[in-house]
Amino acid sequence: MCPPCFLMQLQQNTRTRAPEGRGGGVAKTAPRARPDMHHSSVFDLTHTLTADFPSYNGTRDLEIDTMKNFAEHGVNVKRWTVREHVGTHIDAPLHFSADGISCDLIPADDLVVPLVVIDIALRAQDKASTAVTPDDIAAFEARHGPIPEGCCVAMHSGWGRHVRTAKYRNADEEGRMHFPGWHVECAHALLERKVTGLGVDTLSIDMGPTETFETHYAWLPAGRWAIEGLANLDQLPATGSTIVLGAPKIAGATGGPTRVFALV
Amino acid sequence: MCPPCFLMQLQQNTRTRAPEGRGGGVAKTAPRARPDMHHSSVFDLTHTLTADFPSYNGTRDLEIDTMKNFAEHGVNVKRWTVREHVGTHIDAPLHFSADGISCDLIPADDLVVPLVVIDIALRAQDKASTAVTPDDIAAFEARHGPIPEGCCVAMHSGWGRHVRTAKYRNADEEGRMHFPGWHVECAHALLERKVTGLGVDTLSIDMGPTETFETHYAWLPAGRWAIEGLANLDQLPATGSTIVLGAPKIAGATGGPTRVFALV
Repeated sequence: MCPPCFLMQLQQNTRTRAPEGRGGGVAKTAPRARPDMHHSSVFDLTHTLTADFPSYNGTRDLEIDTMKNFAEHGVNVKRWTVREHVGTHIDAPLHFSADGISCDLIPADDLVVPLVVIDIALRAQDKASTAVTPDDIAAFEARHGPIPEGCCVAMHSGWGRHVRTAKYRNADEEGRMHFPGWHVECAHALLERKVTGLGVDTLSIDMGPTETFETHYAWLPAGRWAIEGLANLDQLPATGSTIVLGAPKIAGATGGPTRVFALV
Repeated sequence: MCPPCFLMQLQQNTRTRAPEGRGGGVAKTAPRARPDMHHSSVFDLTHTLTADFPSYNGTRDLEIDTMKNFAEHGVNVKRWTVREHVGTHIDAPLHFSADGISCDLIPADDLVVPLVVIDIALRAQDKASTAVTPDDIAAFEARHGPIPEGCCVAMHSGWGRHVRTAKYRNADEEGRMHFPGWHVECAHALLERKVTGLGVDTLSIDMGPTETFETHYAWLPAGRWAIEGLANLDQLPATGSTIVLGAPKIAGATGGPTRVFALV
């Protein structure tokens, strides 16, 4: 680290200001001391959400109503009716637990974290119902070094490119979906590594055909978040970027549509 | 700039990768070349949004319905019915124009920008219906240097601390509100400086008593965004931080609840 960088980090790590002060009305906690973030470009990992965006259950999960229009009222205002788990969206611990924290209670520090991308796109081309396995994690770490504590690990399966086709849900004649996900053993392995978030470019952190949602049940009740439906993972390096989750701060939310950026 | 920083910037400024690739399904544009972002702490500028959050019109602008609950379904899922302009939220150009761009079309590069904070909190303590004026901009620039192109300029009036009291709307007996905002002449001055975003810790970029919304009409149709209802501005330095707007990427949105961070 160069001297100016080191000095800046030193100053900032000794900062004691609260992130939520008089204006916030919530508990004061000091920002986490963290290594410098050092970036110069912004990538958008968010799909545009439309009323017909493919949803996990095949339902229409967003309706948009016009409340005021410019010609008549001099202003445009709309109203959304939206299920929380549609589009590029976060799952809060509460989504798959009785008493996990809701989305608004996830600390800001846990929503801006290093991003690691594990690429299984080549394998997923030939086999939709494949999973990221502990072997993939081992191979990744052999090449890129240990997955750091406190990061987000995202599966890049190439599925983001299918978002506007039937391949995104890839449902068979019985309605069972086929797309890649995280093997539950990876959830356990990444909990051991104290990873903060799990990401996918598919509809679910569990593989499409699951009936048990075992990765969800292993991951979220452990106080971790997941981010599903990521876009543009093919544009990112395997390590070195920071993911920023603009997760909704709606009281009691179990998750919700989220604007996601990668700072590279 | 130290040699490693310079080298990293050089590498990144010559990057030609597209921010929205095969996975995005939207137009490819290269990330903007920008100076290094160099930060080590995260501040949350977002108020928690509840169904009874004070709204501009005094209406109830959010309803939350439980769709599935853990005891019965093994999963928690809710549905929101939400007007776009409630809580800490962005105004897209479309909000106050016939044909401005909607929220989903604001480039990611314009949602991660340097933040400048102009503090009028002392004056606003004694006079609620005060405005940031060109004199405030001149005084700020005399002390901190020119306001840079492409940044967000936020008014810190101290109003964020009133969010859970009647003072936030500060309505008189006739229902007219009294809180600080931006004088329209500032909108013109900041357009000349090619500023990207205008921020406030109140309900509106216009002063509370306005009937003409002249700051909205000067600013948004010029292709700029505004961010209203910011929290915790009292925690930030006047310059040197980066604001990140997790603006909803909902097709056609005129704005919407937004998770906002400052990287310091």
